[in-house]
Amino acid sequence: MSAEPTRGRRTGGRAGRQAARAAHTPDRVPYLTRTLKPFEVLSEEGLVTIEENADTILERVGIEFHDAPDAVQLLKDAGCDVEGERVRFPRGLARSTIQATAPRQFTQYARNPANNVEIGGMHTVLAPAYGSPFVLDIDQGRRYGTIEDFRNFVKLSYMSPYLHHSGGTVCEPVDLPVNKRHYDMVYAHMRYSDKPFMGSVTHPQRAQDTVDMARILFGADYLEDHCVILSLINANSPLVWDATMLGSARAYAEANQAVIMTPFILAGAMSPATVAGAAAQTLAEAMAGMTYVQLVRPGAPVVFGSFASSMSMQSGAPTFGTPEPALVLYSLAACARRLGVPFRSGGSLCASKIPDAQAAYESANTLQPTILGGVNFVLHAAGWLEGGLAMGYEKFVLDLDQLGAVHAFVNGVDLSPNGQAVDAIIENGPGQHFLGTAHTLANFETAFYRSSVADNNSFEQWESEGAKDAITRANPIWKQMLADYEAPSIDEARDEELRDWIEGKKASFPDSNV
Amino acid sequence: MSAEPTRGRRTGGRAGRQAARAAHTPDRVPYLTRTLKPFEVLSEEGLVTIEENADTILERVGIEFHDAPDAVQLLKDAGCDVEGERVRFPRGLARSTIQATAPRQFTQYARNPANNVEIGGMHTVLAPAYGSPFVLDIDQGRRYGTIEDFRNFVKLSYMSPYLHHSGGTVCEPVDLPVNKRHYDMVYAHMRYSDKPFMGSVTHPQRAQDTVDMARILFGADYLEDHCVILSLINANSPLVWDATMLGSARAYAEANQAVIMTPFILAGAMSPATVAGAAAQTLAEAMAGMTYVQLVRPGAPVVFGSFASSMSMQSGAPTFGTPEPALVLYSLAACARRLGVPFRSGGSLCASKIPDAQAAYESANTLQPTILGGVNFVLHAAGWLEGGLAMGYEKFVLDLDQLGAVHAFVNGVDLSPNGQAVDAIIENGPGQHFLGTAHTLANFETAFYRSSVADNNSFEQWESEGAKDAITRANPIWKQMLADYEAPSIDEARDEELRDWIEGKKASFPDSNV
Repeated sequence: MSAEPTRGRRTGGRAGRQAARAAHTPDRVPYLTRTLKPFEVLSEEGLVTIEENADTILERVGIEFHDAPDAVQLLKDAGCDVEGERVRFPRGLARSTIQATAPRQFTQYARNPANNVEIGGMHTVLAPAYGSPFVLDIDQGRRYGTIEDFRNFVKLSYMSPYLHHSGGTVCEPVDLPVNKRHYDMVYAHMRYSDKPFMGSVTHPQRAQDTVDMARILFGADYLEDHCVILSLINANSPLVWDATMLGSARAYAEANQAVIMTPFILAGAMSPATVAGAAAQTLAEAMAGMTYVQLVRPGAPVVFGSFASSMSMQSGAPTFGTPEPALVLYSLAACARRLGVPFRSGGSLCASKIPDAQAAYESANTLQPTILGGVNFVLHAAGWLEGGLAMGYEKFVLDLDQLGAVHAFVNGVDLSPNGQAVDAIIENGPGQHFLGTAHTLANFETAFYRSSVADNNSFEQWESEGAKDAITRANPIWKQMLADYEAPSIDEARDEELRDWIEGKKASFPDSNV
Repeated sequence: MSAEPTRGRRTGGRAGRQAARAAHTPDRVPYLTRTLKPFEVLSEEGLVTIEENADTILERVGIEFHDAPDAVQLLKDAGCDVEGERVRFPRGLARSTIQATAPRQFTQYARNPANNVEIGGMHTVLAPAYGSPFVLDIDQGRRYGTIEDFRNFVKLSYMSPYLHHSGGTVCEPVDLPVNKRHYDMVYAHMRYSDKPFMGSVTHPQRAQDTVDMARILFGADYLEDHCVILSLINANSPLVWDATMLGSARAYAEANQAVIMTPFILAGAMSPATVAGAAAQTLAEAMAGMTYVQLVRPGAPVVFGSFASSMSMQSGAPTFGTPEPALVLYSLAACARRLGVPFRSGGSLCASKIPDAQAAYESANTLQPTILGGVNFVLHAAGWLEGGLAMGYEKFVLDLDQLGAVHAFVNGVDLSPNGQAVDAIIENGPGQHFLGTAHTLANFETAFYRSSVADNNSFEQWESEGAKDAITRANPIWKQMLADYEAPSIDEARDEELRDWIEGKKASFPDSNV
């Protein structure tokens, strides 16, 4: 496995800091470490209520595990009450099973060690959006995604100092057959980036293929005690886990690879339309899924996931950036801390079709709770448009800029003598501006987060430069990033082995779009 | 004084709630009452450091009171060390003077009692943007504001259930002479709205005129024990208060009317470029100003104000929505709570020239700290563009929508049995959607905040409707609001007296633009 630095690696020493300043960006970090206590929306008593309700749901209604006799048997053996596919959990059983073996925090290893990430605790890992069939840019408009788009977003994520993770299905490459596209997707993450990545979950065999590819890249034994794949396993809410997702989760857990067990809830459709109802149901579903994972392989890394959106009660369309999903997020982040597992939620979500003011208000209204609530793994941190139906190139650039600001925010207030600046104020005195003072000059380059895309010029200058809106300014930025892209080097023998293996696999069965 | 309800008055009973639901808005409240504990970015120790530093600044450097011998004398008599215009405060003197007499919370009375607002404590009052020379809409572009624009924004603020206050200089009416425009501005607030309002501060005489007009409107004696005017008094940072502002503050305080003592700081120019430095200096300046007010009239309502922006260190332009001003806001909101005075800061600030994604990201990045930090009075909550140089009609509409969302957020999580919805989950069971359930139908209309301007439709529908961005969709909304506007009724005799008084004043001295 190669271990050369990425372009964005944390740089040491004076030259590195100067380089970082020249780029007008905070020093590159492999993941965020928050210094501030999370914002809380529920008291201890309120959190206990949500937990009690989750237990009541698990006990009285239970969860259905569809077409998954192995899961049902494991849970029965663990003490659950089974009736066909319905599994009821004695109060506290899910919690105690998870707490007995699930890690509070774990490392996901990247092929470049400088990009290893910590998932859990005070850490936050930012990953690009996931799962869009469409892509959008202002040159070509909205269209189905292709493997070229997929590779572009892998490259853009690799280039950004503000994304810590390569993500997974950064868009659907619909130009490739459904039953084989995962080979090219996983390979793209492995080859065009050296940040950690996600695996295929659309069929248990595709999950197994991802594990097999990782064994080629990292070495067969390496996976046994290193998590190198993190995958997204969605519940079929309300209160159902289905065979495809459970089988994929099993393939990963058996290989000691991480899964995010995520109830995907449009409140009002897949749960009650209330915050506390959606939260309790999400907690119940996620705990059932995490319990299954811990029974498959005790100690396998697992993440409590929550995707919650509100809904237009007229049209049934999901809505984003509204207060209710933020309240669900804050509530469940606290529940995850109490349970003692990493938490995934949030992102830069929006319903808007284009990166206009609607998109930005909604995205910011999701990103702020994501950060202030203390989410540990953030899928959809950049690029998300149209309720997840489209991955936007310009939206990606605009979101990256916001993620940069988050990097500065999480450090909190600098209370060093230089940060306090009392001497500077005393020396300066009343009525004198600070622009040329020694303190200002010393802090000039790092004082404030500098946006790469905001226009702070005068109206006249902005107008003379074409009166460009944020979308228009974002357009050349992603193009320049792709033009500047250089692939990280890779061990050529392993790369060849990987490509040969994929070729063999692809040739071994016919293409299909099922 | 008239006491009839406004259009947006809190409605009682079933009919009122139905009307509110029909409008897809939360029930009208006269101000926000937050239920959540503020987000904190500093520990107790960190806050003490900021306070100690403010005391050091007041003690060692002091504050200059320019051309204000009355202020200097008052402060000298209170125990300050005076050297010309420079006033040094013994440690703790400012704090103890303020805490001895300044109210922790006060009521600002409106001519419609249903619109009285509470300023301080867990309450938040939202007011429109203030001070822009320009206005912007997409039909006419950017142009100087006029008294017609001014009246329009008074009317729009009156129409909105999400603004609790009529504000002050909602835009500069540059078509009127500088020395007389305050008559028309204050009259517009009095006549075209019945929400509380702000007074003129550009000259002590204009402040006195505002007080005199309020005495006509409310009755001469009423002001003695009712605050009906809240005014914005800016420091001339660093560490200077000047005669115009101090004179205006004095006119209001002597009449027992409220002032917001606000250091206006572009960090790096008017303070050190660090968060802790800007915070300590702001606290020092604001405490000096509030001390003056309490010496003028002990017990007069006073608000600790902070306007802090970051700066482009290349161009010197203010920048908004960046992490540093958010950290200043959170820090000083906590300082204000410890001092025991209401706090003004934040808003929907941005540097963008138009309400595009930049404007929205920046505005949301300011509004979220404003709400989560627990700001009590929020100027600039709607309409702000271009660093405050322009008031935008479409931006106003987009911001109002965000303020609506805030109204839902501050209520926190509903933990009533209906909110918990456990029975609904039990009754529904696995795999069944909740769309038609009794619980969903019962919560249908109030479950989620419904945006008035977001488009949540499918891409195809959105495209067939003209692929309108948020700006374009906001445009007809303010026009419809103005078309629907009906002035609140007013006691005709008082209105006539007011107009006669203004006419007499205007005729008594020549127009001037100084």
